[in-house]
Amino acid sequence: MLKDLLSGSDPAAPIAGEGSAAHPAIESEAEVRSEREARERVCELCRHLYTLGWASGTGGGFSLREGHRIFVAPSGVPKESIRPEEVFIADLQGQVLSAGHGRISACTPLFLHAYHLRGAGAVLHSHSLNACLASLVCAQRHGDGYVFRIRGLEMVKGLQGGHVDEPYDIPIIDNMPYEHELADSLEQAMLAFPRSNAVLVRGHGVYIWGRDWVHTKSQAECYDYLFAASVRLREHGIDASVLGRSHPRTP
Amino acid sequence: MLKDLLSGSDPAAPIAGEGSAAHPAIESEAEVRSEREARERVCELCRHLYTLGWASGTGGGFSLREGHRIFVAPSGVPKESIRPEEVFIADLQGQVLSAGHGRISACTPLFLHAYHLRGAGAVLHSHSLNACLASLVCAQRHGDGYVFRIRGLEMVKGLQGGHVDEPYDIPIIDNMPYEHELADSLEQAMLAFPRSNAVLVRGHGVYIWGRDWVHTKSQAECYDYLFAASVRLREHGIDASVLGRSHPRTP
Amino acid sequence: MLKDLLSGSDPAAPIAGEGSAAHPAIESEAEVRSEREARERVCELCRHLYTLGWASGTGGGFSLREGHRIFVAPSGVPKESIRPEEVFIADLQGQVLSAGHGRISACTPLFLHAYHLRGAGAVLHSHSLNACLASLVCAQRHGDGYVFRIRGLEMVKGLQGGHVDEPYDIPIIDNMPYEHELADSLEQAMLAFPRSNAVLVRGHGVYIWGRDWVHTKSQAECYDYLFAASVRLREHGIDASVLGRSHPRTP
Amino acid sequence: MLKDLLSGSDPAAPIAGEGSAAHPAIESEAEVRSEREARERVCELCRHLYTLGWASGTGGGFSLREGHRIFVAPSGVPKESIRPEEVFIADLQGQVLSAGHGRISACTPLFLHAYHLRGAGAVLHSHSLNACLASLVCAQRHGDGYVFRIRGLEMVKGLQGGHVDEPYDIPIIDNMPYEHELADSLEQAMLAFPRSNAVLVRGHGVYIWGRDWVHTKSQAECYDYLFAASVRLREHGIDASVLGRSHPRTP
Repeated sequence: MLKDLLSGSDPAAPIAGEGSAAHPAIESEAEVRSEREARERVCELCRHLYTLGWASGTGGGFSLREGHRIFVAPSGVPKESIRPEEVFIADLQGQVLSAGHGRISACTPLFLHAYHLRGAGAVLHSHSLNACLASLVCAQRHGDGYVFRIRGLEMVKGLQGGHVDEPYDIPIIDNMPYEHELADSLEQAMLAFPRSNAVLVRGHGVYIWGRDWVHTKSQAECYDYLFAASVRLREHGIDASVLGRSHPRTP
Repeated sequence: MLKDLLSGSDPAAPIAGEGSAAHPAIESEAEVRSEREARERVCELCRHLYTLGWASGTGGGFSLREGHRIFVAPSGVPKESIRPEEVFIADLQGQVLSAGHGRISACTPLFLHAYHLRGAGAVLHSHSLNACLASLVCAQRHGDGYVFRIRGLEMVKGLQGGHVDEPYDIPIIDNMPYEHELADSLEQAMLAFPRSNAVLVRGHGVYIWGRDWVHTKSQAECYDYLFAASVRLREHGIDASVLGRSHPRTP
Repeated sequence: MLKDLLSGSDPAAPIAGEGSAAHPAIESEAEVRSEREARERVCELCRHLYTLGWASGTGGGFSLREGHRIFVAPSGVPKESIRPEEVFIADLQGQVLSAGHGRISACTPLFLHAYHLRGAGAVLHSHSLNACLASLVCAQRHGDGYVFRIRGLEMVKGLQGGHVDEPYDIPIIDNMPYEHELADSLEQAMLAFPRSNAVLVRGHGVYIWGRDWVHTKSQAECYDYLFAASVRLREHGIDASVLGRSHPRTP
Repeated sequence: MLKDLLSGSDPAAPIAGEGSAAHPAIESEAEVRSEREARERVCELCRHLYTLGWASGTGGGFSLREGHRIFVAPSGVPKESIRPEEVFIADLQGQVLSAGHGRISACTPLFLHAYHLRGAGAVLHSHSLNACLASLVCAQRHGDGYVFRIRGLEMVKGLQGGHVDEPYDIPIIDNMPYEHELADSLEQAMLAFPRSNAVLVRGHGVYIWGRDWVHTKSQAECYDYLFAASVRLREHGIDASVLGRSHPRTP
């Protein structure tokens, strides 16, 4: 699957096929500094995920891309205390270039889909309770599958391509026993919902990506707010998938 | 609209019409320090908004006034990491005197209404989930529009002009596709509800102002508490718009 | 009322009547240090109240007693940023011995009741949303008034004199337009409920006291947990006033 | 009971019977450092418990094991401000080797069960509101007692031996007037539910253990998330004990 992607023709995949001969033996000072900063950024974002409650119990994950390399958090460790030297570096095929602590995140194949299919600059995986609840409480039938649909809340405008008057759909894929088994259905969801920068995993959490780490973080905060709002509104009998700008409780 | 305001006769607009010839070429040391402090204050308040969850995903905003100048946070950036030099300075017509980072907050026309119509010393725009939920869950018909009405909770006394035995109304205006499009209906709401220091925007958030930044912050905390309380009480079948001091669940 | 207390015969009032001739002109170094520490403690506790969300919008308050003097936070200021020199010192009749910033807390007459009637070493006033909600959602008729009754939760054991198998009653008094107007009904509640270290004020918050500031803080955390738990359980149809140790949802 | 354990034949009790002659008079520098680090770790974890809201009002507790010694927090003190020298050291029979502040945690007999019966390297006792609510709201009949059953949520995979497609049961024991009275029923629950690393105490909280402090902390975060999720889902009419990976609200 991943191999296919690299020779794929998806217009949204600007970096596909350029992953070769990109690792010179000698690095400039600027490259050394840039790598150190990327490692520190991964640690900082992982701490932030933990603080927000999105990475409790070693869950969650984060990765960013610099040119032909991706920086990825290690797997199965407390995300709030990762050190820069524990971060993995891999190429765009997921081949580890520089080993970190233990194993590379099990989310790596999923992160790669965001890099290849959507030209992402950073991707995060959140175990936010809001995302988990929304995937169960607010799931709506859509074709063969399910979506989380939201409409009429200002925060939709914070999403790339979001408009307050239009319904915005986030696909919900089934959960699987192992994280890497999600890769194929996540790929299909990304292709089927090209407007969404997020894919929910039922009873599990969400994958969210953006142009770079700043954009990814802000997208993630908007999505999480919408998950929380939609679940809370449902406690009051309000369906946030059909809200308009101007009508309140009842139209 | 804004031009009209400056020549307006509203008694609550002490600063209208005094916005000229106010920018001498040479600044005293005290002026330099005062400007630096104002810039730092804007950054500090924006961090606070973010910490409270009122500015997630680059949302929210803050502005304060010093004499004939207003200091405004930039637009579309993470509010928790603004630096002093990124803050905009504008005059009371919204003309930028000193550019900050990127674009000036899209809330600026709305902030100016609070300065002109209500003599505010500071204004904030919060995307608090409590405000968003309250605007949908607790909206009550009032004339042609809607209000959030609250009564009988101590925190009403924390609002300027609030009394625990009287209903306190906060207008709710419809949301719009673009922030600046809210300016006219916000103006009308401010004129129609001269007692309220806040205007809710449906499914969006709230604008809150006060005499200065300390007062604005404390007003905002009181309003947010009341939004949260009202929504929570409704989950228990209690309507917080008709509470009295002495009767419990049922009168 | 307060004057009466000082000559009262309540056995729980160890300090009544000893408030005279207690302010020598010359203070020892130890006294200077002790006063500074008490001032700092008040500030620290007020910051803690704010962090817990119990003192938003200049609400809440805190006082502690050292011998014949009480230290009291100022009124109507943000509680998270009080400085030691802004703290008031008063005697046990409430007479200010050393002025702080602005006015002394409007809670002072209520704090004095806890000192005199209950021999408290510290008292706090919290605007916790949990306390406010519990006073409305969980109020039960009791004689002419109302109580918050809790039973069967471990945290009851954290309350002075609390037992997990016995109902524990916290009186709820009506709110009043001005804080000092609460003094008489708070006094009556303290006398009528000698086991409780707390008095709830309907739609307002709670007064909590203890032997010293450590005890007061821990009592307050236990009470607040019980308020939160009781409100949450009611959302699930569980009445926390009749819980037993061994029966679950249904007996 | 504890004496029995030490000569017991439970295969999961790797350390039973090795608790003698283990306290040499002279300690090496490494031992001194190791002891200091263990004391600091206990304090750090207790602060973390408090921050998470799991140890309010002097509640909660934490212990870790180093060889034949266990380090235990003191009883009845604010857990967020314990100092290293206040931590107790005891042997595996619970005999205090080095006294700390006041009394050793009343949880000590319960901690010892986790060390002896389950080979734990660390144990914590949380008063988390989520655990308390889950023990009441989500209790299911199971034989003579009750369990909290969870299924189909990703976070189950974070539990030792957890599988997303299988129900995972956590025993719920009745609460008792005194903490040490829980020891026997906790022992029985540990023996009856060898897969669970946690025992809930009804209306009280939860005991959770793991291989070491890192594992214990991560297990505790997973359990707490599941308690919170299950209670929240029930507010929406969703029973989290029968969730599947692929079916949403209704199967």
